[in-house]
Formats: sequence, C-alpha cells, structure tokens
Amino acid sequence: MPGTRLDVLAIGDAVVDVIADAEEGFLVEERLVKGSMQLLDAGQATRLYEKMGPARETSGGSAANTVSGIAAMGGRAGFVGQVAKDQLGEVFTHDIRAHGVEFETPPIDGGLPTGRCLILVTPDAQRTMNTFPGAAHQLSAQALDEEQIRGAAILYLEAYLWRAEGPREAMRAAIRIARAAGRKVALTLSDIACIGRHRADFLGLIEGGEIDMLFANEAELRSLAEEEDFDSALGRFEGKVPVIVVTCSEKGAIALEGGRRVEVPAAPVAKVVDTTGAGDLFAAGVLAALARGRSIEDSLRTGAIAAAEVISHYGARPEADLKALVRL
Amino acid sequence: MPGTRLDVLAIGDAVVDVIADAEEGFLVEERLVKGSMQLLDAGQATRLYEKMGPARETSGGSAANTVSGIAAMGGRAGFVGQVAKDQLGEVFTHDIRAHGVEFETPPIDGGLPTGRCLILVTPDAQRTMNTFPGAAHQLSAQALDEEQIRGAAILYLEAYLWRAEGPREAMRAAIRIARAAGRKVALTLSDIACIGRHRADFLGLIEGGEIDMLFANEAELRSLAEEEDFDSALGRFEGKVPVIVVTCSEKGAIALEGGRRVEVPAAPVAKVVDTTGAGDLFAAGVLAALARGRSIEDSLRTGAIAAAEVISHYGARPEADLKALVRL
Repeated sequence: MPGTRLDVLAIGDAVVDVIADAEEGFLVEERLVKGSMQLLDAGQATRLYEKMGPARETSGGSAANTVSGIAAMGGRAGFVGQVAKDQLGEVFTHDIRAHGVEFETPPIDGGLPTGRCLILVTPDAQRTMNTFPGAAHQLSAQALDEEQIRGAAILYLEAYLWRAEGPREAMRAAIRIARAAGRKVALTLSDIACIGRHRADFLGLIEGGEIDMLFANEAELRSLAEEEDFDSALGRFEGKVPVIVVTCSEKGAIALEGGRRVEVPAAPVAKVVDTTGAGDLFAAGVLAALARGRSIEDSLRTGAIAAAEVISHYGARPEADLKALVRL
Repeated sequence: MPGTRLDVLAIGDAVVDVIADAEEGFLVEERLVKGSMQLLDAGQATRLYEKMGPARETSGGSAANTVSGIAAMGGRAGFVGQVAKDQLGEVFTHDIRAHGVEFETPPIDGGLPTGRCLILVTPDAQRTMNTFPGAAHQLSAQALDEEQIRGAAILYLEAYLWRAEGPREAMRAAIRIARAAGRKVALTLSDIACIGRHRADFLGLIEGGEIDMLFANEAELRSLAEEEDFDSALGRFEGKVPVIVVTCSEKGAIALEGGRRVEVPAAPVAKVVDTTGAGDLFAAGVLAALARGRSIEDSLRTGAIAAAEVISHYGARPEADLKALVRL
C-alpha cells in the first residue's frame, strides 16, 4: 500500500511461554480444560509452575508470534505490547527484534513483571495455556505511536488483550487512528472464553464496519455468531467483513473473500510436536502473502506452510528458514 | 553405599542456556572458537546477545545437567550452585527441582544476576558457548551443607567452576568433607581452556589421590596429560584414578577401571540437533548405572543412551522419558 512503512502492525500480549510436557491426568488433577487459555493471577501462576515439569522458555503472545512469522517471511512488521524492565522482558524484546520486527514500546518499571504463559503440552501435541499476563495487561493508549499506526497497511488486533481495560482502550484508539488514515483493521478472535466475555464488543466492531479482516478457528467463529452450524456462522459475517479466514486444524483452512469461498488442505507435517502458535503462524502466512499481492488461495497455502513449520517443534515462533519454505 | 541419602551431589555452574542457531560465518565474524566455551563479562554478553538470532531458553550448567539426568533416570541427586533472586534464578531452580534434584542453595540478593550461557548452534549441530557466569561465580564455601555432602556417595565437581576463587574454595572444602566421610570424589574436566589455566591444581588433586573418578573427552584428557597420544594420556593416570571415563564423540566412549579398558560405541541418533550436554548426560548415565551396581560396561552403555537422547533436541537437559529409555 502506498505511503506505508509496515505491512502489519500488531497489538497483543507480550509474554514469554514456559512450555512443559504433561500427561492428560495432570490436566484433570489441576482442573484445566485441554486446548483452552485461562488467566492466572501471580499466586495461581506460582502454584501451577511449581507442579509443572522441567520447562523450556520461548517468546510468545499470539499477535507477537504472528508478526514474528511475517518478518521471518520477509514482511515488514511491527509490534506494540507491554513488557516490564526485567529479564523476561529482555528475552521478549530480544527475540521479537531478532526476528526483524519493529518493537519500540518502552518497558515499564516498578509495576507487574513481564507476563508469562505456562503451556502444558500433552502427548497428542495439544496445548493448554495458563497465562499470567503481568505487565502485558498494563498496556495503555499512551504507549501508542500514532505515526507508526498510520504507517502500517494493516493494524492487527489480538482479542485476548481485549480482556483488560487499558489495552482495550489502546486498541480502540488504534482503530480510530488506523481508519482515519485509510488503513485496514484485522482482528483475531483468540479464544472462545474471550469471545464469550466480549461478544457484544466484537459484533459491534463488525456491524460498525470497523473490521476488514477476521481470523478465527471454526469453534471461535461459531461462538462469535452463536450458531451451531459452521456455514451459518460464516454466512452471518458475509458482506460485513471483506476477508474472513478460518482455520480448521488438520482439515486445513477456509477463506471468504467478497462472497467467494476458498479452501486449502493442511500442509503435511512429519511429526506434530506442539500445536501452540498454529493459528498465529497461519495468520502470519496469509498476511505476508497478501502483502506481496498474492491471491487469497496462495495466501492460505502460505499460511498452511507456516503453520506446519511451527507445530513441528516446541514453541510458537518459527525456527526453520520460513523465507525459503514459503518462497513469496 | 550404606549411610548415604544421595547417589551424587554435584557442585557446578547454575546458569540458564540461551540457545540460538547461527551460521559458521557468524562465529568467524564474532571471532568465536567453534566448540569451545569462553567467559563473557556483562557488557560482552549484552553485545553478543543483541547480535544473536531468536533464542530458546533452557536451564543448563554442566554438572547441573548431569544431576538432572541422574534424577531423570531414577537416581538420587543433589546440586549446589549459586543463582540470584531473579527470574532466571527462578527458572533454574524450578527446572532442576522439577527433574527431581535436591537443590537448596539460597539465592543471593543484590549481587550479580543469575548466569547465562549464550549458545550458538551451527548447522553441524556443534555448540559454541559464551558464558556470563554472574551469580554462579559468587558461590562460596558458606553455601555448603556439610551434612548433605556427607550424605552423598559421590561428590561430583565441575572444572568450569574452578576458574573463580570463591567456588574453588568451596570445592576444596567439599572435597575435604567428602573424603573425611569416606565418600568418593569425581571430577569432570569441562574444557581445554579451563585445563590450561588450572592444570597444576587438577594434577595436584589426582597425584594426591583425591580423585576417584575422572570424566573427560579425548582432547581434555590429552591436554591434562600434555600428551599428543591418547593412549599415553590415559596411561598417565592409570593407577592414580580408580575410574576414568573418556567420551570420544561419535566414536563412543572408553573407560579404564582398575587397569581394565572397556569401550562402547555411541548409541544411534536419527538426527543430531544440538550437541550441548552430550558429555554431561553421558556422565549422568554412567553415574546412575554405577549407583545401581551395574558393571562399567553397562554403565558406559547407559551413558551412551542418555547422551544420544540429549543431542537429538535443543537444550542440555533430558526431554524424553530417560527412565524408560535406559531401564536401569
């Protein structure tokens, strides 16, 4: 897009993932809903961490994973999110910048520590996420750089962050700035619980014509539409959101663009290790390809390749040379 | 051994590994010697970290990896090492305890931060380590628990830690306590540069009959003996150290026990990803098997299996179910 410096600027949770293997029985014992995301306070996070097995840490956060993927594929990406001035904040900052993402949100000092997401990966490679958001939920509209927002073709918003008031106000302000500059706004629905809490807000944005691209998985789209049937759910947003991209796990993905429905199969994976970040990297592939002017079919295929890479190892950021894999 | 509560108590560096992929050219540019370990001060560590790619963090430290492996195989293991009261200190403490290792060294507050080792993994899976030891080198003899040392059948010492005065004094004190209680002392040689600096000390310990078990790789043993020829190097310590275990990378390992030489091949690995921790986990397998009364041949074979597991993924701590793999 002319006059843009970035393809995508995302606003999302700035967290470090703490990933441990866990048996199904552990989830039952801890009363955790497999595949979901729940928020923890500091005490709950400490107690769960003590019970978890040895872990590995990698930078995470849904939208942060997406922009890292876009940058890894050669796209121009930026991120807005809140870390604290601490060691995990340094880790998050290093990793996202090392992927090539512009990240300039100043760390906060003296508030909550940098957020972390305790992720339990069961033998079926499914991930169950337990997030202590910490500083991530202390993001405020003051952290926004209006010039940066105006300079990005797409503003990409993470629904997870809608839960907290400060970040929600920041995202509303960012939408206003982006739309006033004629930029597009994309929303990723993140999680059913999150939709349950904020359905009215999300539907309001959609009905108000504020959302140009919607990213979701099947369950999230059905939940947002409050429709049991997938096609009815998709139909509910037809004509209201110009581009809708829905991931369907191992079945692949579907997009609805200007009334045209496109489907692609999932890309093959030798061994699925950890599904964390599958949707995030799918969105990354789609956005990176669309930014290069590719068709929606090609963009979905790129998303499928990026998602296949990220589920082949632990951690939700790309490890292989994505640029070579997707050849945009 | 009767009257013991632990099979092995290790004293070593308490550090978190920060692991990134790197091309050979990056090592050349940064003037790093492939396969070696070098010490960094805080400024050097910050500068190198800024240039490194996106990373993953896992707890590390040579002897800490070894005791984590022993515990993962069902052995009774303890660790003494210094972390700071910070987020990386919490990560280190969580991981080693989650492996089942007794770790009670109190974190220090207001000193240096928890140490980290910046590890560059080249496409050949070789690791080049750049350690900012931080709090790890602030270990002092006051941190020792005499009862814990007397309660461990083997005191296992990491030569890397010999570099700093406080830890060196702590290790000398621990040797005295262990020997007075009739316990065995094991030394792992860690690195050629380290041997070059402290050869007189290490030879003094060996000549003084203070070392019951010596762990090394081929190059380290030759360096300690100052012998070009491997057999001459091995012969140099025959009769002075009751058990000598030498790893020879993909060729396997050799042990010399009471004048008898035993060799085992390396265990097969589908794909070598990151060789960090190969020697540490080899030592873990040997020590865990010896603690169960296995022969030196069986113990070397156990070491080979544990080493094969750890080089099949990033990070120097076991990820697979080692207990099932080694079936002790």
